[in-house]
Amino acid sequence: MTEPGKVSMEKIVSLCQRRGFIFPSSEIYGGLSSCWDYGPLGVELKRNIKDAWWRAVVQERDDIVGLDAGILMHPQTWAASGHLEGFSDPLVECKNCHLRWRVDDLKDKNCPACGGELTKPRLFNLMFKTFMGPVEEEANVVYLRPETAQGMFVNFQNVVNTTRKRIPFGITQIGKAFRNEITTGNFVFRSREFEQMEIEFFVKPGTDEEWFNYWLEERLNWYVNLGIKKEHLRLRQHAKDELAHYARVCYDIDYLFPMGWAELEGIANRGDFDLVQHTKYSGKSLDYFDDETKERFIPYIIEPSAGVDRSALAFLCDAYDEEPAEDEIRVLLHFHPSLAPIKVAVLPLSRREKLVEAAKQVYADLRQCWIVDYDDAQSIGRRYRRQDEIGTPFCITIDFQSLEDKQVTIRERDTMKQIRVPISELKAALAAKLSGEDLFVLPPGGQIWKE
Amino acid sequence: MTEPGKVSMEKIVSLCQRRGFIFPSSEIYGGLSSCWDYGPLGVELKRNIKDAWWRAVVQERDDIVGLDAGILMHPQTWAASGHLEGFSDPLVECKNCHLRWRVDDLKDKNCPACGGELTKPRLFNLMFKTFMGPVEEEANVVYLRPETAQGMFVNFQNVVNTTRKRIPFGITQIGKAFRNEITTGNFVFRSREFEQMEIEFFVKPGTDEEWFNYWLEERLNWYVNLGIKKEHLRLRQHAKDELAHYARVCYDIDYLFPMGWAELEGIANRGDFDLVQHTKYSGKSLDYFDDETKERFIPYIIEPSAGVDRSALAFLCDAYDEEPAEDEIRVLLHFHPSLAPIKVAVLPLSRREKLVEAAKQVYADLRQCWIVDYDDAQSIGRRYRRQDEIGTPFCITIDFQSLEDKQVTIRERDTMKQIRVPISELKAALAAKLSGEDLFVLPPGGQIWKE
Repeated sequence: MTEPGKVSMEKIVSLCQRRGFIFPSSEIYGGLSSCWDYGPLGVELKRNIKDAWWRAVVQERDDIVGLDAGILMHPQTWAASGHLEGFSDPLVECKNCHLRWRVDDLKDKNCPACGGELTKPRLFNLMFKTFMGPVEEEANVVYLRPETAQGMFVNFQNVVNTTRKRIPFGITQIGKAFRNEITTGNFVFRSREFEQMEIEFFVKPGTDEEWFNYWLEERLNWYVNLGIKKEHLRLRQHAKDELAHYARVCYDIDYLFPMGWAELEGIANRGDFDLVQHTKYSGKSLDYFDDETKERFIPYIIEPSAGVDRSALAFLCDAYDEEPAEDEIRVLLHFHPSLAPIKVAVLPLSRREKLVEAAKQVYADLRQCWIVDYDDAQSIGRRYRRQDEIGTPFCITIDFQSLEDKQVTIRERDTMKQIRVPISELKAALAAKLSGEDLFVLPPGGQIWKE
Repeated sequence: MTEPGKVSMEKIVSLCQRRGFIFPSSEIYGGLSSCWDYGPLGVELKRNIKDAWWRAVVQERDDIVGLDAGILMHPQTWAASGHLEGFSDPLVECKNCHLRWRVDDLKDKNCPACGGELTKPRLFNLMFKTFMGPVEEEANVVYLRPETAQGMFVNFQNVVNTTRKRIPFGITQIGKAFRNEITTGNFVFRSREFEQMEIEFFVKPGTDEEWFNYWLEERLNWYVNLGIKKEHLRLRQHAKDELAHYARVCYDIDYLFPMGWAELEGIANRGDFDLVQHTKYSGKSLDYFDDETKERFIPYIIEPSAGVDRSALAFLCDAYDEEPAEDEIRVLLHFHPSLAPIKVAVLPLSRREKLVEAAKQVYADLRQCWIVDYDDAQSIGRRYRRQDEIGTPFCITIDFQSLEDKQVTIRERDTMKQIRVPISELKAALAAKLSGEDLFVLPPGGQIWKE
């Protein structure tokens, strides 16, 4: 068994590339610095994470609605949010070779590239800028959003007016954001293009502390319910001097990544900062009238802000395991069934025509319900290993006896237990195993689900 | 009944803004030219369209896998693809006020803004450019992808190596793309930020014509199966002089939008253009070895390329209907159940405590399965109208009798027919109505499903 929190990043990166979870972006051109492409399995993992978010945050609740605002927003948005002024790193430039460096990355006072003299630090904005319209001039500058949050603030009044939602309620958005980071790395942990899942939850001032605590617990439980071990999660409160300009209180949900504890999600009490700022810059009132109490106020905002890529990395690291099996090491991903890219693999025992025919029939039938794989290459043992390594919860084996008794074998990833099931009952059996929550609740700190 | 293809864009735009499908981007700042934000209902519609695509293209097939490549790609990608050289519009600049204009938009030879003299036309590239890293210089220029296709071409070998897929097979990707169009408009039909759904289907040369025809039919049927009326779709072949530089043959699937017939999806036979170009520019071989025939060849590519936003607009327009009902006009969206943003609305007949309690119970129970709305404001008739207008297929009414007999009323959107169902059987009844394909196959040209 891999020691908790001890899987190396090299093993994760290697598995991701070898099996098609994540590739370096534009790899045939040597890659694009710290950008990543999700392959066939990675895209399914990401879809499952985002679907689990949407299900927990929108579908199963009665107080949050979704939104999908543009990546390109009106530039005034970033003046109001403080990003134009404050979203920057101090950089120095070499007077000789003109390369720029982050001050905290420097070991001495000279240019690491050529040894030249460096300028005094200047602020460098982390937003990617581009030009909209045919003329490249200041008036046409727009930015790639550095966070999805602002799209929800500027649409607050639109949502109130069109949905009949009353405070307390929230808006959520999943989408790409871009930051021109100087220091990137740790695989998909910090990249310049990334995907966020954010909630902006609007509450009455005075109730904000209570809601903040509610969201801390709610968000922690989301990860635990999807299989992250409790001992790999911790809460860390931001110190006063590290608080962002908009935040009254902020906690990080840290995960024990291979490189150590690092932020998986941030939960902030933003107070009324955002709605006040956007009111000031737009001249449009963003206050709220409570029909019942006849009070008018500017809501406070509690913001859980998670990363899809960081979540994917955390779920991969937490699921990774190695265990001895028949003279070799069995590598497996203990993915929660709802996150597993492939739910079921159909494996005919051999390539004999009759077996293949029966197996293809089962394969076609199961594809109506789930993402299913089919594999008839090499020994059944090697095929099980291939599925274990990508976290497929169930393998269905069709053997010669299946042709006689119309039964197949379901083999479980974690226990390697096998049970025999009539083909006519296969779909229902798998549905119960894949969706029955009581079947898959992880014991505290445990990796293997109960049956 | 609204005459087919005759709904006005004004009505669609108005409905979209009034009910929270689509808002102008950054509206409180006066909007950002031709960019749009999807509101709570719009984001569900888009999710449903993308899920329907993924289900039909990835899940239900055995020969297509997904991918999610970056929006930022290595700049050499765009040299190889031809976009750096060829993806441009001819523009003229006013020598006096320096505004630029598209040649085909000009009525005479002077500047429409100031009357000044215009330069000769120069080519203006439609890709948005930005700078990666701290220095804004030519070496750091990267582009926002103008199409998702290239991410699939540059990852062709990665997918072959990691998935065991053999030709013929495809890769599909859904994601944002950006084009700095000079002429935008017709609501979300042409905007600068948009979302694509593309398939790159790799085939053996010589079989490409057959596969091209296969995909034409397959893609047409996807729209028809999701409720688009056949008479609102047509195929249009590109003339020789309008063919893109990469295409051997290209057909548009046109839809009869309010502004007339316009491209909903393009299907192109790209031949070996893309893999040859990327081989040339990257120096990496992108050919394919067929294990069975022992042949080595460069695959041809058939590309169905659809737009999420255009599909959303088409589904909205096609679903829109007005019909007389009780002295007023009933506005309704005949969405296919799988596309409807809200599947079920729960409506207690009044706000009496016992009714609300029972209704909330049903609401909580149904949310486990679907996106469900709850509405207890105003008369039941008005509430039905509100749900009709956003295309909710089923309303559940809980009345006083429900408290006695534990039965509720299911009211159907299109027929306004009502049936009484025991609460214990409600979920199963709705599941059958929402997912049973035989229940919802549209008769050719018809708008109302059979029961």
